[in-house]
Amino acid sequence: MRGIGKVSLIGAGPGDPDLLTVKALKRIQDAEVVVYDRLVSQEIMDLVPPKTALYSVGKKPKSHPIPQEEINQLLVDLAKEGKRVVRLKGGDPFIFGRGSEEAAELVTAGVEYEVIPGITAAQGCASSLNLPLTHRGLATGLRYVTGHCQRDVPLDLDWASLADPNTTLVIYMGLAAIAEISTKLVEHGMPADMPAVAISKGTTSEEQKVFGTLTTIGELAKAAKLPAPTLFMIGDVVGLKETLELPELTGSEGNWGEKRPHLEVING
Amino acid sequence: MRGIGKVSLIGAGPGDPDLLTVKALKRIQDAEVVVYDRLVSQEIMDLVPPKTALYSVGKKPKSHPIPQEEINQLLVDLAKEGKRVVRLKGGDPFIFGRGSEEAAELVTAGVEYEVIPGITAAQGCASSLNLPLTHRGLATGLRYVTGHCQRDVPLDLDWASLADPNTTLVIYMGLAAIAEISTKLVEHGMPADMPAVAISKGTTSEEQKVFGTLTTIGELAKAAKLPAPTLFMIGDVVGLKETLELPELTGSEGNWGEKRPHLEVING
Ligand SMILES: C[S@@+](CC[C@H](N)C(=O)[O-])C[C@H]1O[C@@H](n2cnc3c(N)ncnc32)[C@H](O)[C@@H]1O
Ligand SMILES: C[S@@+](CC[C@H](N)C(=O)[O-])C[C@H]1O[C@@H](n2cnc3c(N)ncnc32)[C@H](O)[C@@H]1O
Repeated sequence: MRGIGKVSLIGAGPGDPDLLTVKALKRIQDAEVVVYDRLVSQEIMDLVPPKTALYSVGKKPKSHPIPQEEINQLLVDLAKEGKRVVRLKGGDPFIFGRGSEEAAELVTAGVEYEVIPGITAAQGCASSLNLPLTHRGLATGLRYVTGHCQRDVPLDLDWASLADPNTTLVIYMGLAAIAEISTKLVEHGMPADMPAVAISKGTTSEEQKVFGTLTTIGELAKAAKLPAPTLFMIGDVVGLKETLELPELTGSEGNWGEKRPHLEVING
Repeated sequence: MRGIGKVSLIGAGPGDPDLLTVKALKRIQDAEVVVYDRLVSQEIMDLVPPKTALYSVGKKPKSHPIPQEEINQLLVDLAKEGKRVVRLKGGDPFIFGRGSEEAAELVTAGVEYEVIPGITAAQGCASSLNLPLTHRGLATGLRYVTGHCQRDVPLDLDWASLADPNTTLVIYMGLAAIAEISTKLVEHGMPADMPAVAISKGTTSEEQKVFGTLTTIGELAKAAKLPAPTLFMIGDVVGLKETLELPELTGSEGNWGEKRPHLEVING
């Protein structure tokens, strides 16, 4: 008889398959079943061996999401069949990833699990833009919030505290609410010309970025019709753009020999 | 004639070599020179090919740190010799890692660079503890701050804003100041019984953790003589410990066949 299986809750990172951790890659290559979200990039799904069973549980645009309870039950059922289950999520499973909700269900069902962290969107986007998340004298701290809210319910964020100009503010799921968010931040004292950037599909070959200020970023992001997923980074660190911009290439001999993806840059 | 080299600013993650990204591992294996900090674990340094030149620029306990300017100059010099330079830092180079200071110097010197993000200590520790950084209904946001301060200068943090009980608070470099920090947080309205945990050498075989509350964590961490590096996680998510604790193992057949490191658990 086969023992009970195990679920590996894995962060797949922001999109670039090379930003998977070594541990995540090992588990993916060794999995019997992969249950994955829409945020996991195709390049990463291409790393799953052909014989592995796949379950897509991401909601497709315009269709209803699969209820979290169904996903939880699927993981439990597969583990109880004795399978080595990989649950693959975008970014890090424990940052706006609902990983702990799934973990709690696995515990209740008596299923063993492990968590493998992933590069979260903020880190992937920051490194891809060559912009730091903290920087001495400019940002002594870092904050991640979600701009997502229930339909017709106003965003309930602690604006006064978020408006702190010494903390880099990263907004996940903020595409719909960015105009409202930036207006509120200015109302609560954040400088209206605070640098801001929107990054769509960061670290992938389709990465786009739009630079602006707190005043302009909402309109610019809208005008650029940035596709999801999009992340917003707000703070003085974004103003380091020119300081940290790569110099003109002087030759390829000493370089890594890799092409950087084509980046569409829109300045505002 | 050899072209100018390139510097890869790489996050080595919290310690477990399997938490390196695939990209970081490729660069390490391909480097001609590795310039590394003390925070980079021995297991990771063991992955550097034997022929690669090594420069340790981490400060040793009780000795003076190498000034940042010297490190910057070393990177520039090595790149100008045409070398493929890997600059290896603990965690993520852009989160309390001074990566952007080095990048700015490279730009000034006309040296090409790239940034490869790494799993930051907060993510490594959280996943190792099976504790999420955000969780619906408990923590709608996440905040990283540093508890480090200049000698004899009081910590200058925005206490009122940090005391927000709906945000998970992670303190880097807080070992010396944790008692002061927790007192201030309580004074500014954070519940005195808010769950807190200290994690030393997270994700390594020497990982230790101490659970407590805002009231007790300072004393408990001190009594346990936790060695650096130590991270503090404060918030209701830490209270999920029991909910997310792994069930008793029911057999090994379905498991990954790996030993978990021995974890010394001290409860308070
Ligand atoms: C449900 S959250 C999941 C976050 C994920 N667990 C993480 O740690 O990155 C989805 C949000 O993540 C952000 N996101 C994820 N991947 C991204 C990428 N490659 N580029 C930009 N934003 C991304 C967007 O803000 C998106 O709305
Ligand atoms: C100078 S900061 C560097 C942070 C690093 N760049 C990162 O992203 O994790 C050093 C602090 O990181 C934390 N840290 C780094 N690695 C750690 C680990 N394995 N376990 C616990 N804390 C760690 C500690 O709080 C330590 O004081």
